[in-house]
Formats: sequence, C-alpha cells, structure tokens
Amino acid sequence: MFNFKLLKESKECKARTGIIHTGHGDIKTPVFMPVGTKATVKAMTPEELNYLGAQIILGNTYHLYLRPGHELIKEAGGLHKFMNWNGPILTDSGGFQVFSLGKLRKIMEEGVEFRSHIDGSTHFLSPEKSVEIQNCLGSDIMMSFDECAPYPASREYIEKSMQRTARWAKRCKEHHKNTENQALFGIIQGGMYEDLRKESVRQITALDFPGYSVGGLSVGEPKELMCHVMDYTVDLLPRDKPRYLMGVGSPDYLFEAVERGIDMADCVLPTRMARHGAFLTSKGQITIKNSKYRRDFDPIDEECECYTCKNYSRAYIRHLFNENEILGARLASIHNLFFLINLMKRIRISIMEDNFIDFKEEFYENYGY
Amino acid sequence: MFNFKLLKESKECKARTGIIHTGHGDIKTPVFMPVGTKATVKAMTPEELNYLGAQIILGNTYHLYLRPGHELIKEAGGLHKFMNWNGPILTDSGGFQVFSLGKLRKIMEEGVEFRSHIDGSTHFLSPEKSVEIQNCLGSDIMMSFDECAPYPASREYIEKSMQRTARWAKRCKEHHKNTENQALFGIIQGGMYEDLRKESVRQITALDFPGYSVGGLSVGEPKELMCHVMDYTVDLLPRDKPRYLMGVGSPDYLFEAVERGIDMADCVLPTRMARHGAFLTSKGQITIKNSKYRRDFDPIDEECECYTCKNYSRAYIRHLFNENEILGARLASIHNLFFLINLMKRIRISIMEDNFIDFKEEFYENYGY
Repeated sequence: MFNFKLLKESKECKARTGIIHTGHGDIKTPVFMPVGTKATVKAMTPEELNYLGAQIILGNTYHLYLRPGHELIKEAGGLHKFMNWNGPILTDSGGFQVFSLGKLRKIMEEGVEFRSHIDGSTHFLSPEKSVEIQNCLGSDIMMSFDECAPYPASREYIEKSMQRTARWAKRCKEHHKNTENQALFGIIQGGMYEDLRKESVRQITALDFPGYSVGGLSVGEPKELMCHVMDYTVDLLPRDKPRYLMGVGSPDYLFEAVERGIDMADCVLPTRMARHGAFLTSKGQITIKNSKYRRDFDPIDEECECYTCKNYSRAYIRHLFNENEILGARLASIHNLFFLINLMKRIRISIMEDNFIDFKEEFYENYGY
Repeated sequence: MFNFKLLKESKECKARTGIIHTGHGDIKTPVFMPVGTKATVKAMTPEELNYLGAQIILGNTYHLYLRPGHELIKEAGGLHKFMNWNGPILTDSGGFQVFSLGKLRKIMEEGVEFRSHIDGSTHFLSPEKSVEIQNCLGSDIMMSFDECAPYPASREYIEKSMQRTARWAKRCKEHHKNTENQALFGIIQGGMYEDLRKESVRQITALDFPGYSVGGLSVGEPKELMCHVMDYTVDLLPRDKPRYLMGVGSPDYLFEAVERGIDMADCVLPTRMARHGAFLTSKGQITIKNSKYRRDFDPIDEECECYTCKNYSRAYIRHLFNENEILGARLASIHNLFFLINLMKRIRISIMEDNFIDFKEEFYENYGY
C-alpha cells in the first residue's frame, strides 16, 4: 500500500517534490506533519485539520502506550478509528521520549528500562515492543526504535549508540507483523560526525526500508551545524524513498531542510506556540498578549486566508488569551497550523516552478530572519 | 425591530410557544440560551453554535465592563462584530455578579459601589451605567439593573430591595438610548413572598417593557419553592410579551419553567459541566472519568445525533479528559449544548402538538428524575 513517487527535483538545490501513497490517502511532499501526541492534535478536531490541509498527522508511541494503552486502542479498532482521523498517521518509536527521561531510564542491548513520568511504574521498551505497539496502533508509517543521542556527545558514545541503533533497526524489521499496511522507516543516527553518519546510512539503507528518517538533529546543536550534517547526510539516502527530518517545524528550519532534500518534517511548535498566544505571521512572530494589540482591530496576519484571520481581530484574540478562554488556543492553533501547512504548499509550488531559492529569500526578508 | 408573536398556548398547562423577532434574527420559544460570559461561549466557535441550533446567546455586562471594557467593544463595532456572532445577543445588567461579590460591594439608592474581583479596583454600577454599557455592547435584548436578593432573606429586606428595583427599572428605561435596536426587559423581584411578587409585577409592568424577566429565583431555594413562586408569578405577566427565567438550565428546571409559562432561560450549566467531563444524556447524567467507561466504545448517548455522539466513543472522550486535552472540553460542550437546545426544540413541538405533559413524563422516567 505504501510507495513514493518523485515528481520533480529542483534545478537550484537538492529540494524535491513528490507523492507518498498510503492506505489512508496520498501525501504531497515536502510536507509538514502536525503532532497529535495523545491521539489528538491539541485543541483541534479532525475536520479542522482537513480544512487546514493537513495531509498526515503524528501520534506518539510512548504516550499512547502509557495511556490509554495500545491494547485499548487496538480494541477500539486502531488509532485512526479511536481518534476519528481517516487520513494517514505516522507514529514515532517511543525512543525519543524514553531517552529524554534521563535518570528514569537505563539503556541495555535488549532495550530500555524506564519509569513512567506519570506514576513512576517500571516499563521496558525494546525494538520488538515498539513495533508491537505500533502494529496495535495501526499507523501508516512506523519508526524503528532508535537511540536519539544527546548533543553534545563524545565520538565514542555516538559510535556505540549508532551501531546499536542499526542492530535495533534490524530487529524492528524482523518483528514487524503488518508490512502490507504499515511502512516501517529506518532511522539514521551518527550525531555530528560525518563518517558516523555515512556509516549509519550504509548500515540502515542496507536493510532496505521504504523510507528513512534523519534522527539526532534539532537536539540543541546550532542551526549551522544541523544544516552541515544534512548537507552530507541527506543525499546519501536513496533518491526514490521519502526522507523525514524528525522534530523540525520553525519556518527557517523547514526551508533549510527542504533545500537539502528533506521530504517530511513534524513539530509540536505551531500548536505549543499557539497555546501560549504566539503567532507565526508573514512578517515574523507576534505575542498577542502584548499591550500594543489591545485596540488593534486588524487580523493576526493580513496576508493570511485562515479562518482565524478572516473572522477575528488581534484585540479579540488578545482578550481571549487574557481571559484564558479555550477559543484563544483554538484560533491560534488554527492559524499557526495553517501557516506552516500553507508554507509547505507554497514551497512545493516553488520547487515545481524552479524558484524555491527566490521564494525562500523573499520569505526570510519579510519574516525578518 | 423587536416583537414577540405568540403561536400557541398549551391546552394542558401554561406552556406556550412563539417567536421573538430581533434585528439579528428570530428566536423560536421556549428557548435555551447558551452563556458566553466573556464574549465567547466557552470552547465554542460561533459556527459551532449555529450548527447546534443556538438561536441567541448571552454576554455578561459585569465581566465585559471590567475586561476588555465596553468602550473597546464599542470601538470594535459592538459585541456581535467583536466576537463574530451574527445572531441575537442578550446581555444581563451586571447586577447579579455585583451583588454576588458580598463584602466587596455596597448598595446605595444611587447604585452599587464594588471592587473588581480581578484587581480590587473600585467601580460604581448604577441603572444608568448598566444601560450605558449595554448600549455600547449593542445587545439585542438588555436587562434592567436590579437587585437579585439572596435566599433566604427577611420580608423587610426583600420589600425594600424590590421597591428599589422598581425605581431602578424606571431609571434604566429613561436612560436607554437605543430603543430602536435594543429591547430593554424589566425584572420582577419579590423573593419568595407572593404579595411582594404581585406588587413587583404591578410596578414593573406599569413601565411597559417589551419583555419581562423573573429574577431572584434559582438562588438556592428548594425546587418546589421555585415552582410555587412561578405558579403565582408568571401568568400575571402580559400574555403578549416574552418571559425570561434567569439562570436556569438543568433539564427538570427547564421543564418546570416552561410548564408555568416561561419562554426563555439561560445557564452556564451545560458548558461548565462539560469542562468537568459531566454529560447530560437521555438516561441521566454521566461522569466520563468513571473507570467503567475505560473500554466503553459506545457513544455518550446512543439516542443523540450530535457531532460528538456520531464520531467518538466514551473510551476516547474519557482518555481526552484524563489527559486534560482541550478536545475533551470541546466535545463535551458540543454534546451538552446540543442536548439542551434539542430538548427545547422537542418541547416546542410537544407544545404545538398538545402532548407536553406526556413528553415531560417520558423524559423524566428515562432520565431517572
């Protein structure tokens, strides 16, 4: 059910556009994927996500495993049915969250023992377990269980971790029970070390996954370093498979990633910013609680065509945030998601028309980057 | 722009059905009015309220006066435009909230001095000021500034307060600047004393308002006492004017009020319950966090046709509430509002068909009253 069709490669840079086919629908790439950590993209209904043009959303294995539990979701008919989203879903492996637990987890060859951030109960996540959970969730795209190593980390640590990630990738592939309907991606690690990234690409692509993620980036390293790693990593990946940069969602990071050949990206940024009253606009970011918006009856972004900008003023939205009204978070989430989804749409067009670089420069200038 | 047309009086009881015409649309009565205290019906968009069949919503003068301020709302083009709701709006007088402040307020003949519950700043609300604020808000239906006396209260207190409320009603009427577009209602007080209620009706109706509210009920008195007061008060009011019972919204209170000739009612109950995960259903109230719903994949109410019940399971909604997800409050608000709005629609039909009493008895039996 899963395949990727490359439609066009830019003449200006490594950017490309294509279509991913899944059992729950097609995805035009490059794509920004909203995050629905706990079986809901925060504050949004599935119908609203459709209206915004969301083509695929994420679910988080770690969170769904702990609550409400993958078995309950399987019993409900899978994650799509449970949350009433009929489009494609991508699930992560749970690895990133587990490794983020710090002292609460212990890494072994077999897997990772960790304590729940909710109640302190002990759990064990392994490549096999992660795949089993994702099989229960029924996502269209699954991730291999990898270690997302911290930054900075020694070459020695990164090499050891990267080698283990490759062994884990193999175990994931072997344990995957639903290859017909769920595409399992391999994940490239190797930190900020060029030779290790190359070795990781060699090991992981040898397993022949239907798609590849670039992991271990956007973990605190400077933007230039992230770009540098992408420069030498992304185009080593097979040209005919989708490439996914995990955890990236600010406009500049999306541009830089696409320019280097990335097809997919996700981030909680637009919805998290939204809940704090921060808006992405064509002229840069604005914080609506600022008193200068008190009597500002203009829309958030005059150039924006979203529901929020067509119907509400900055003054009203500021009032909602001052009063802690749920509608404030809703209107902000709608706007920020629309902003990034629409940005990606315009990026796809610019790639088709070979003016991606011009579009990027114009956007950066207006945004104030 | 404002008038009321009585369509049908029940042959079984005092229940009646009619239509209120306003500059922002018609309202079929009896009607339940969702409350949008701070220029938003909590968690809902105006489009969703339309979908649910809401015919008119409330705004609260006290809250909007304090934040964002009636002058700002006037500058925005009025409350309708500010909040993007094009249907009818009713505003209260601010009296109820001010009197609820207890020690923070001081009642005088001129008006009420009070301290803001937000920042402790001192304010003064009078009949003239309340009308001025409501004129700025531009609501279709305004309330006179009255004292909602507490329960229990001495006959002496109630009589004094009721007399002042009549003097205030006259001042409100005289100060009202926009009689063409905004209908100012008079409010009946008199506590639980039959002769005082009758005297209040005499005084207030003598001022010839386009509609009348029954105030000072649902303030802590037993349900039977409230019904008794309605028994001797409501049908003293002019037959050709709408009658509004303030602050009532549980299904049984709505039935009892309609049976005694009430046309309009409002309450925060459906949305407040919703945010706590409590649902009104045809078989009584349910609290979704109860562990028995953990693996319950049925809808909240199998008989309900709302968006929530057509698309989501109890198990999913329980999960959303356990995770404190905004979507939970949204789905619950949609359901509870639909439940009461739809209940009132069925009540209107039952009045037209002269089977209100049967309908009430059947509802009570299923609900478990």
